[in-house]
Amino acid sequence: MSSELTRDKAFFAFSPDVVPVIHVEQGEEIVLQTHDCFSGQLKTPADTLETLDWSITNPATGPVYIEGTKPGDLLRVDLLEVKATGPSVMVAVPDVGAMGDMITEMETTILDHTEDAVVFKGRVTVPQKPMLGVIGVAPAEGEIPNSTPGGHGGNMDCKLVTSGASLYFTVGVEGALFGCGDMHAAMGDGEVIICGAETPGFARVKADVVAIEGLPTPFLENDELVAVIASAETVDEAKDLAIHRMMDFLTKVAGMPLNDAAMLMSLTGEVKFCQVVDPLMTVRFEFPKSVLADYGFQMPR
Amino acid sequence: MSSELTRDKAFFAFSPDVVPVIHVEQGEEIVLQTHDCFSGQLKTPADTLETLDWSITNPATGPVYIEGTKPGDLLRVDLLEVKATGPSVMVAVPDVGAMGDMITEMETTILDHTEDAVVFKGRVTVPQKPMLGVIGVAPAEGEIPNSTPGGHGGNMDCKLVTSGASLYFTVGVEGALFGCGDMHAAMGDGEVIICGAETPGFARVKADVVAIEGLPTPFLENDELVAVIASAETVDEAKDLAIHRMMDFLTKVAGMPLNDAAMLMSLTGEVKFCQVVDPLMTVRFEFPKSVLADYGFQMPR
Repeated sequence: MSSELTRDKAFFAFSPDVVPVIHVEQGEEIVLQTHDCFSGQLKTPADTLETLDWSITNPATGPVYIEGTKPGDLLRVDLLEVKATGPSVMVAVPDVGAMGDMITEMETTILDHTEDAVVFKGRVTVPQKPMLGVIGVAPAEGEIPNSTPGGHGGNMDCKLVTSGASLYFTVGVEGALFGCGDMHAAMGDGEVIICGAETPGFARVKADVVAIEGLPTPFLENDELVAVIASAETVDEAKDLAIHRMMDFLTKVAGMPLNDAAMLMSLTGEVKFCQVVDPLMTVRFEFPKSVLADYGFQMPR
Repeated sequence: MSSELTRDKAFFAFSPDVVPVIHVEQGEEIVLQTHDCFSGQLKTPADTLETLDWSITNPATGPVYIEGTKPGDLLRVDLLEVKATGPSVMVAVPDVGAMGDMITEMETTILDHTEDAVVFKGRVTVPQKPMLGVIGVAPAEGEIPNSTPGGHGGNMDCKLVTSGASLYFTVGVEGALFGCGDMHAAMGDGEVIICGAETPGFARVKADVVAIEGLPTPFLENDELVAVIASAETVDEAKDLAIHRMMDFLTKVAGMPLNDAAMLMSLTGEVKFCQVVDPLMTVRFEFPKSVLADYGFQMPR
C-alpha cells in the first residue's frame, strides 16, 4: 500500500516556506503524479507560448514532508518507477534555447505515445526513457524557482534521473520538503531547444536518511555507475565543480589512492552535459561502479 | 596491397610547410604506424615527465600527400582499422589537467594489454576501444602544434575517432597533408587528467575527395550517427559552435525543416564533451542517422 499525490498538489519554488501537502515515513512508498512542465496547458498545436500562463510552469508535485529528517541529513531517494503517461508536447520558440537565434517561427507539436515510444509528427519513433527534469529538496533558506538547478537539486534535466536510480540530497530543513516533476518521455543530453518530450506521468519513490560521510550532493547512483551533478553559471564552471567533487568522492568516500582516482577518472570516467538552457548550466561526472568494486568499495545499502 | 608508414615518420605541427613523406592516390589504402603521445619515451614507472624531451610529444605520422586534392576540397578519411599494440602509459602530474590542483605527486604507470583490454595496476580491466587523439590536415596557412585542436582537426581527442568511422576535413593546401597519431587504447569523455591509455598502434585508412556542399568540418560519421566536432577557448563557446553547426547541417545539407531539426536535436541529439584539457576545449554534437533516414537523407557514398 502506498500513498498517492495527485498532480494538482504542485509547487513552483523549492523553499522552507512552502507548506507540505503530505507527511510520509522514511521507507514508505509514495506515488507522485506529475504534470508536464507547462502544467498541461499546451494540448493542441494551436496552444502556443503566447497564451501560456507562465506562473504555473515547471510545477513539482509536493512538497512531501519526510518524517525524522533534519537539516544536514543525507537523504537517499529511490526512484522505484518513473512512467510517462503522455501525450507529450514540444515547442520551438524564437530567441529561446541554445539555438534560439536560428528559430524564426513559434510552434507547438503534440507527440503520440505508443507503449514504449513517442512519435514525432508521425515520422520519427523515439524509444521512451522517462526521466524527471525537476527533483529536489528545500534549501535551508531562500526560494529557488523550479526553473533553476542547484545544490538542492531542482531543474537539473539529467537523463539518468529515471527508474532504478537513487538520488542523494543534503536535507536543508526539517522534513526535507521533497518534490519532483517536469517529466520527459525522452530527451537528449543538452536539452538544447529547452524541452524534451514533455509529458505527464508518475513517479513511485521512497526516501531514507542514510549515513555516508562527505558524499557530495546532488549525487546519483544506478546499477552501472555513480555520478555527481553540478550546476553553475557556465558549463566551464559546472564541469570543474563536477570533476573536483568526483575526485573528493573517490578519494575521501571510496578511499581510492589519489593518483589512481585521477587516472581512472580520465580512463573510465566521463564528463557529460545534462542541460545548457536553464538559468544555470548542469554537468555530471559519471564513474563506473565496477571500478569502485575493484577497489573494494560499494555504496552502503 | 597497401603502403605503410613507420612511426619514425612523424611531424609535430600541421602546416603547409611540412614536407610530405609519402604520396598516395585517392582511395588507396595506407597503414600508418603511430607512436603514443610521448613518442615512446616513457617505458617504465621510473620514466617521468621531468626527463621528457617535450619537443617530440604529440607526434603524428605523416604528412601524407593525397593526389588530386586542392584547397577547399572536402576530404573524407575512412578509418578502416584502428588498432592499439600496447603497452599503454598514463601519467599523473601536479598542476596539469582539469584537477591538477589536487594532484601532489608525479607518477607514471604502464598498463599491460590483453587481446581486448588494458589492465591498470593489475587491478582494473578496461575494454579496449582504440581511438586516435590527433587527426587532421594542414591548414591553409600558419602552423598549428599537434597539441591543439581546431578547424583542421588536430588534437580533438574524440573517442568516436575509431575503426569504422569516417572523418571529413576541408582541405587547406594541395595534397591535404594528412596525418594522425596520439592513439588511446581507452579514454573517457573529457580526458580529464590529460591522458587516456596512451599507446602505440596503427591505423589503416583511405581518403577521397567527395562533394557534399556546406558540410561543416571537422565532421564525423559512423554506422549509428553523424557528429560535428568544434573547438574553442571555452567549453561554452565550443558547445555553441557545435550546436549551431549541427543545425546548419540538418537544415542546409540534410534538408530538414528548421523547427523539426531543432526539436529533434533536443529530443534525439546529444551534446558531448571530447576533451577539456588541451589549449582549446573540444565538444561534439551527435545526431542519429536513423532520424536522417526518416527524413529521406543519407550521407552520400
